[in-house]
Amino acid sequence: MADIGSVLLSLIIILAAAKIGGEVAERFHQPAVLGELIFGVLIGPSLLGWVREDEIIYVFAQLGVILLLFEVGLETNIRDFLRVGLTSLLVAAVGVIAPFVLGYLIVGWLGIGGSNVHMIAIYMGATLTATSVGITARVLADMRKVNTDEARIVLSAAVIDDVIGLIILAVVLHMVRTGNISIAGIIKPTVYSVVFLILSLVLGLRVSPRIFDFIERNVRVRGALWTSFFLLCLVLAVMAERIGLSAIVGAFAAGVILAQSKHHEFIMNRVTSHADIFVGIFFVTMGIIVDVKTLLQPDILILAAVIVGVAIIGKIISGLGALGKKVKKIAIGIGMIPRGEVGLIFASLGLLNGVISPSIYSAIVVMVLVTTFITPPLLKLAMGRREKSAGGERLAFQSSEGETDKDLRPED
Amino acid sequence: MADIGSVLLSLIIILAAAKIGGEVAERFHQPAVLGELIFGVLIGPSLLGWVREDEIIYVFAQLGVILLLFEVGLETNIRDFLRVGLTSLLVAAVGVIAPFVLGYLIVGWLGIGGSNVHMIAIYMGATLTATSVGITARVLADMRKVNTDEARIVLSAAVIDDVIGLIILAVVLHMVRTGNISIAGIIKPTVYSVVFLILSLVLGLRVSPRIFDFIERNVRVRGALWTSFFLLCLVLAVMAERIGLSAIVGAFAAGVILAQSKHHEFIMNRVTSHADIFVGIFFVTMGIIVDVKTLLQPDILILAAVIVGVAIIGKIISGLGALGKKVKKIAIGIGMIPRGEVGLIFASLGLLNGVISPSIYSAIVVMVLVTTFITPPLLKLAMGRREKSAGGERLAFQSSEGETDKDLRPED
Repeated sequence: MADIGSVLLSLIIILAAAKIGGEVAERFHQPAVLGELIFGVLIGPSLLGWVREDEIIYVFAQLGVILLLFEVGLETNIRDFLRVGLTSLLVAAVGVIAPFVLGYLIVGWLGIGGSNVHMIAIYMGATLTATSVGITARVLADMRKVNTDEARIVLSAAVIDDVIGLIILAVVLHMVRTGNISIAGIIKPTVYSVVFLILSLVLGLRVSPRIFDFIERNVRVRGALWTSFFLLCLVLAVMAERIGLSAIVGAFAAGVILAQSKHHEFIMNRVTSHADIFVGIFFVTMGIIVDVKTLLQPDILILAAVIVGVAIIGKIISGLGALGKKVKKIAIGIGMIPRGEVGLIFASLGLLNGVISPSIYSAIVVMVLVTTFITPPLLKLAMGRREKSAGGERLAFQSSEGETDKDLRPED
Repeated sequence: MADIGSVLLSLIIILAAAKIGGEVAERFHQPAVLGELIFGVLIGPSLLGWVREDEIIYVFAQLGVILLLFEVGLETNIRDFLRVGLTSLLVAAVGVIAPFVLGYLIVGWLGIGGSNVHMIAIYMGATLTATSVGITARVLADMRKVNTDEARIVLSAAVIDDVIGLIILAVVLHMVRTGNISIAGIIKPTVYSVVFLILSLVLGLRVSPRIFDFIERNVRVRGALWTSFFLLCLVLAVMAERIGLSAIVGAFAAGVILAQSKHHEFIMNRVTSHADIFVGIFFVTMGIIVDVKTLLQPDILILAAVIVGVAIIGKIISGLGALGKKVKKIAIGIGMIPRGEVGLIFASLGLLNGVISPSIYSAIVVMVLVTTFITPPLLKLAMGRREKSAGGERLAFQSSEGETDKDLRPED
């Protein structure tokens, strides 16, 4: 049996690191995730050694990323999503294709991984495709620019990227697990992903409200309603995982379904209270896994620098997808740069499945850190100075404590 | 690395069992915990075999019991507690001493465990001392009898029993771990427990409000306040565990401290949303560990029957502690009968530390089930028919969904 005392002690250190790291980052006007990652590296075995990699902490981290995608899903309005213009779709498509191709070519050119170079190149290309909507949304909200055309295009494109990213993840994991790089190996998981998402959304949106209504009316036992929402998330996560997708695809689908629920506010409140704890554990753990020694190897430093460049250029190109629109294309491209959670999910699953080495994992974490770090200042430059808006726009996912508005207070 | 898919699948089964079991029990006007335990036995390896004992599930269960005691602490008003009359203290004392002595004597008389009989007898006596305030409070609230003298005495005495039970647990665990049954072996953990509780309460009540005020005023990062309340619980739990007490002692102390916080409502809401998930996992897991085969052994059945008798008689005697008061002493005694969570904590820690066998564990679970099962009908008989009260009394811990009052609706 696990020694519950040492599990709790690791939890304490990780949670404290998450919140202190997040706070330090925000004090420097940086996204919290940056501080969580860096503090994770700091307390990990390669520096301070306060916590080790541990199976149980790993499970908590997985629960964290499941809750994170559940939360992202809860903030995704399927109707807005279906109504999204051609522009966002184009931006998203270019923002997936350009980094993928560039990432693939660059790894092939560097010749990393010897005979395995082909697989690593595909995986690196895939890792570079995702956009983290959270960081950009946060910066735009801080700048009170959420209601601009640029913001709408970027946020919609980033959500499309999330979905495309989840499908690409399914495809590359299928390739990695079967060792089979073929058209069939691409089509099967793509079809599975699309069918799973469509089926679970259609069925979920039609059937689940009746089930939850039934539970609300008939079940008396404490916590039944909240537990059944949570169970929907877990069930879809396991189903996704069993058909070869990642568990987070199911969690995301569950969130999208429940975003339409009449209990949306109640669910969001509950999920937030869990996410506040567990999501930080995920990011800190991603930092803990980084072996700092690998970053002292010149070739890994070069790799990190190169993929940072590819990550930035690939997404800036995506701004060109906003064809003919009177918008700042460069601002759109910059808004697509941060990789955040999705990049880390790719990296950690690649490490877990043995397709990328700890060194390449470290290089990817550096890429995630740098893209997250440079987006806010670049975006502020590209979007121009912030003007005070009367309304005080607000994205639902910006403030979570529920009792404070500090998140959106002016920075000056 | 753990297969996250199978962890999630076990979680789904356990959570569903908790809520369905709880619901079935409540339909039969029984406490939910009864259904959770029985459904745990049902899905466990000795019957359906849908889930196995598993290290990770065990950690979740431990988090569940920590959250449970945190919640109990949050509902404990230290001022009421210090103001509690001599009557409650006497009832609590008799309710601890009588079952301990009876339990000790009966195990010695049955001669269970051969050369180890002395230790098992002490452990059994200790297991029989605890009172579960939750079940009695729930029944009294359902009967709208919370404002009677009997109810006040029972509820106060049960809280005192909780504290005494935690100290006894520390003492017997210290004995078990050191193998040392001596006056010193009793005094050391008793002093540790009392000093720990007093020190953490005094320091916590004085210092923690300033820390939390500071965090509320100065920390911007998402979820910081809630995480710091949760961290207080984890830190005190680890400290308690490190000085040889059980982690739940620390969680209880943290709850008592935060019960005085101006954020009490916010904390309660957050803790409830976690407890709704994790506490059920604890009770179901306690059922999963039961090996049904052990209950087919005649000697274990006899043991179960005997300790059920001792458990009931020992607590009914405690009603005599209400000396000279014009109250229904029998009703007070009956209100002290249910063992619930505290009995299970004793049993599972005894099993974990090798002091009791799986067979004795099963017998204790039967005792917990029976004492929980018989209390509501006996208490209703002893307290007389329910009268409608105008106010509609309510105990904070009776309704947790936050949006429904169903828990307290009349049963007829």
